[in-house]
Amino acid sequence: MRPIEWIGPGARLLDQRLLPKQEVWVKCQQLEDFESAIRDMLIRGAPAIGICAAYGLATVAGLNQSLSRSELATVLSLAGQRLAATRPTAVNLFWAIDRMLHLAATFTGDSSQLARQLEAEAIAIHEEDVVTCQQMGEHGADLFATGPARLKLLTHCNAGALATGDYGTALGVVRSLAKRLQVDWVWVDETRPYLQGARLTAWELMQEQIPCRLICDNMAGHFMQRKEVDAVIVGADRIVRNGDVANKIGTSTLAILCKEYGIPFYVAAPWSTLALQSASGWDIPIEQRPPQEVTHLQGQQVAPDGVEVANPAFDVTPNQYVTAIITERGVLHPPYSESIARAAESKTQVSVGQDD
Amino acid sequence: MRPIEWIGPGARLLDQRLLPKQEVWVKCQQLEDFESAIRDMLIRGAPAIGICAAYGLATVAGLNQSLSRSELATVLSLAGQRLAATRPTAVNLFWAIDRMLHLAATFTGDSSQLARQLEAEAIAIHEEDVVTCQQMGEHGADLFATGPARLKLLTHCNAGALATGDYGTALGVVRSLAKRLQVDWVWVDETRPYLQGARLTAWELMQEQIPCRLICDNMAGHFMQRKEVDAVIVGADRIVRNGDVANKIGTSTLAILCKEYGIPFYVAAPWSTLALQSASGWDIPIEQRPPQEVTHLQGQQVAPDGVEVANPAFDVTPNQYVTAIITERGVLHPPYSESIARAAESKTQVSVGQDD
Repeated sequence: MRPIEWIGPGARLLDQRLLPKQEVWVKCQQLEDFESAIRDMLIRGAPAIGICAAYGLATVAGLNQSLSRSELATVLSLAGQRLAATRPTAVNLFWAIDRMLHLAATFTGDSSQLARQLEAEAIAIHEEDVVTCQQMGEHGADLFATGPARLKLLTHCNAGALATGDYGTALGVVRSLAKRLQVDWVWVDETRPYLQGARLTAWELMQEQIPCRLICDNMAGHFMQRKEVDAVIVGADRIVRNGDVANKIGTSTLAILCKEYGIPFYVAAPWSTLALQSASGWDIPIEQRPPQEVTHLQGQQVAPDGVEVANPAFDVTPNQYVTAIITERGVLHPPYSESIARAAESKTQVSVGQDD
Repeated sequence: MRPIEWIGPGARLLDQRLLPKQEVWVKCQQLEDFESAIRDMLIRGAPAIGICAAYGLATVAGLNQSLSRSELATVLSLAGQRLAATRPTAVNLFWAIDRMLHLAATFTGDSSQLARQLEAEAIAIHEEDVVTCQQMGEHGADLFATGPARLKLLTHCNAGALATGDYGTALGVVRSLAKRLQVDWVWVDETRPYLQGARLTAWELMQEQIPCRLICDNMAGHFMQRKEVDAVIVGADRIVRNGDVANKIGTSTLAILCKEYGIPFYVAAPWSTLALQSASGWDIPIEQRPPQEVTHLQGQQVAPDGVEVANPAFDVTPNQYVTAIITERGVLHPPYSESIARAAESKTQVSVGQDD
């Protein structure tokens, strides 16, 4: 299930705001379309918005290939700045923009050759993400090779095919475990306020016929207490050098519950989610979303007029709560400062940390 | 703000399902009205449904005072059974029914005298609850006498005037602190799925001009991590002999977060919430509510057709996470087996536990 497809120049996106009621595909054919698609969360999920931004830059290049190379460089640089300003937390967005602009800066051909090359690069970013997710899925599933035969997993938000190029990060692990017939069911946190769990994850799992049970976010602890959760698996929007993880608001609470109940807490994310320049999670900017996401639901008002609201979209889970980080380069174990540094040195798949 | 008023025979209730958009009062004039008002959550909150059930029995007695005493006893007993079957967790419901039926069983006058006496008893239950809440408010506020001058408090669900006869349990403490000018603001958990926090607590605090900030349930941990929560205060639906607390789903998660972040976690509840016959929280039946409360919001569908849902209305917070229990008899401290037993022996206000 690919939530984004190149239709060069341009891309079509599944409008995730309308799921699960409607499956509507939207065409993005100019920069503004890509900007608003990311900002307005028509597409969301750290890897997916990286792919979307790459396709946005490829589209801009395609539309401007009659410009001189220096003019095109300026246009692309401005487009990159505009795309980077859409959402602040997920680092894959900046990673993809940097990769595209780096290619533009170092490419030696003419503008139309560059446009073709950027198109190929964006498609490569997408295809690599798909392979990466499949690798993460297998690495993650291997963690349960000696675990219970029928796992009750819990996930938060949507770290599925819809959040990536295909297959998913956390849901990639779930998919791989389902193929191995190891999934009893998946607890799906509805994930307020945007309900990515209820609207997207439940829908995606039902499409794949993987059993799931939808719950409100505040119910996860109850089922952990009743010993009905074997592991929590989530995605990530940014992982820093010491292993602190920014992810959808509510993630750090799940991690603390896992610690309290002795349940493993796994984060699955591609290497492009790692922000090695940041030393600690305290450096991560937390996006504040509009109050209306909390006070209104599909146009229905659920809170008093004029109530003050806080709506942080992400939180930071300190590294000490993270049992392991699942990447395409292998599974990283604590201490993360060491395992992340070693994985950073290797571009091949490695298994680092605990098992070394 | 009284959510229920006697209009004998019968009562009028503020329909809490319609708040904050509409303030509609509904008349209950026969047993079925009271049953559906409790079952369908037109009125909710442990003390309030106890008062409602008492008014229901007083109404039944008033309507049947032409019956013989033995016939009336049978009618009241059946009415008590039907009211007790409306909701399983809040123990105040059974407490109020037992108190009314005990009076009926021991009263020596004729049926019309009994009807008048039951009316007086129901009104007494209501009035006692109001006084009780005010006493709890003062006892609770005293806990913060040496605390920060400007407190950031967090509450879950609605344990306010709307959940009681007036004034509230947890929000009674908040009201008393606000009178002492000690409240900076109150974080209000929206409290999925029924949104009692967004719809009722935010509304109630705004009516009283106590500053509040509405958040989704999964955001509480984020603000604790950022040191923006000084204490959590919640109500209770049932407290057992060892101090385990049943309260709105999500409460046990808040208590665990408080432990992790070193934040005090207080439970405010009238003595009628204590179920001394139960030894541990594992004995408390947890009400399972309909899936539609999770999948639909004011008629709007927010999850895929046919998705499996779990919807427990309450969870159990083990006693080790509870910093203190605030009752009208004083503030109880751990070990609760001892402090509750001592408070049970005294019917006067006592301060038991830590300070003894």
